[in-house]
Amino acid sequence: MKIGTVTGSVWATKKSPALTGQILLRVTSDGAEYIACDLVGAGVGEQVILAFGSAARVGQEKIPADAAIVGILDEAEE
Amino acid sequence: MKIGTVTGSVWATKKSPALTGQILLRVTSDGAEYIACDLVGAGVGEQVILAFGSAARVGQEKIPADAAIVGILDEAEE
Amino acid sequence: MKIGTVTGSVWATKKSPALTGQILLRVTSDGAEYIACDLVGAGVGEQVILAFGSAARVGQEKIPADAAIVGILDEAEE
Amino acid sequence: MKIGTVTGSVWATKKSPALTGQILLRVTSDGAEYIACDLVGAGVGEQVILAFGSAARVGQEKIPADAAIVGILDEAEE
Amino acid sequence: MKIGTVTGSVWATKKSPALTGQILLRVTSDGAEYIACDLVGAGVGEQVILAFGSAARVGQEKIPADAAIVGILDEAEE
Repeated sequence: MKIGTVTGSVWATKKSPALTGQILLRVTSDGAEYIACDLVGAGVGEQVILAFGSAARVGQEKIPADAAIVGILDEAEE
Repeated sequence: MKIGTVTGSVWATKKSPALTGQILLRVTSDGAEYIACDLVGAGVGEQVILAFGSAARVGQEKIPADAAIVGILDEAEE
Repeated sequence: MKIGTVTGSVWATKKSPALTGQILLRVTSDGAEYIACDLVGAGVGEQVILAFGSAARVGQEKIPADAAIVGILDEAEE
Repeated sequence: MKIGTVTGSVWATKKSPALTGQILLRVTSDGAEYIACDLVGAGVGEQVILAFGSAARVGQEKIPADAAIVGILDEAEE
Repeated sequence: MKIGTVTGSVWATKKSPALTGQILLRVTSDGAEYIACDLVGAGVGEQVILAFGSAARVGQEKIPADAAIVGILDEAEE
C-alpha cells in the first residue's frame, strides 16, 4: 500500500453502473494523483492508506476499481 | 484509478476475437498514452476515469483488456 | 493496453513447459522492451496493442505470461 | 519481489475491518515508501523481501492489501 | 515479461512457510533489482525471461511470489 493525502472528490454522472454509490476521492501519493474508492470515511487533508489493484476490490468484487482508501493514519503518525 | 483525456480511437482489424465489438480509445494520463475499452460512451477531449488491471474486466471477464474507461468527469470537475 | 512496436523474437530452449508453443516477441513501448505472447500473428515492425498482467492470460489461464499482443493497428492508424 | 528496509510502523485506528490485527510496516525500496503487512515478524532496520499485488494476499484472501513482507534476508546477505 | 540478468541468490531463513524450497534469485532488469522464484534452473550471468504479478504463480498458486524466471534465453539471443 502507499500513503497518500486526500485532496478532493470527483463527480461523474456518466459512469459504470457498478460505481453507483461509491465515494470517489482524489488522492495524491508520491507526486501522482489517483482516484480511489473511499471505504473508511476519509476527508480532505487526511493522510490515508491506499491499496491498489485487486486489493481494492476485496469485499466488493463487482466494482471496477483499482484503488481504495483502506485506512486513515492516526494524527500522531502524520 | 487515474484521470485521463480521450485523444482518439484505435482501429485494429486483426485482433483477439474476444475484443470484437469493443470500442478502443486512446487516452492520455500523466503524460503516457493508454488504449482503453470504453464502457461509458466517452468522446474525444473528455476527461475520464481510467481503471487499470483486472478492474478493467469486471463484468466482462473474457476480454483481454487491462484498461477501461469507467466514468466521465462532470464538466464542472474538469 | 499500450501501443508498441514489434522488434524481433526470442528463443528460449529452457523454459517453463507451459510456454511451449507460445510465440514470444520483443516489443518496445514507451522506451521499454517487453516480451509478449503473440496471439494475433504480428510481424517485426508492426504496431501492436499490448495487454499486460492477467489480461494476457484471458483464454489461456495456464500460461505464466504477463504480456500479450492482442491486436495489430491498421496501417492507417500507424 | 523487491528487497526493502523496514523503517517503522503505521497506526490507523480508522481502517477497513479486514485489516484489524494486521501489523502494517513502512518499508523503503528503490527510494519509494510502501506500507506492507508483516507476515514474518520483521523489525525496524531489517532487510526484507516484499511481495506486491495479489501475492500479498496468498493465504489471506480477505485482506485488502497489496504488499506483504514475506521474508527477512539473512544478515550475511545484507 | 521482461528480459533480465541473474546476479545472485538470496537467503532468508525467516520467511513465509509457503516459500520453503523455492529458489530465490536476484535479477536485474532495466536497472532495477528483483527477487524471483527460479522455475527453470537459471544460473548467475544468464539472461532470463521474467514474468511478473500473478503470472509468477501459474501452477503454484499457494506461493506468495510476484516474480518468476520462466525461461532462459538461448545464447545466440544474448
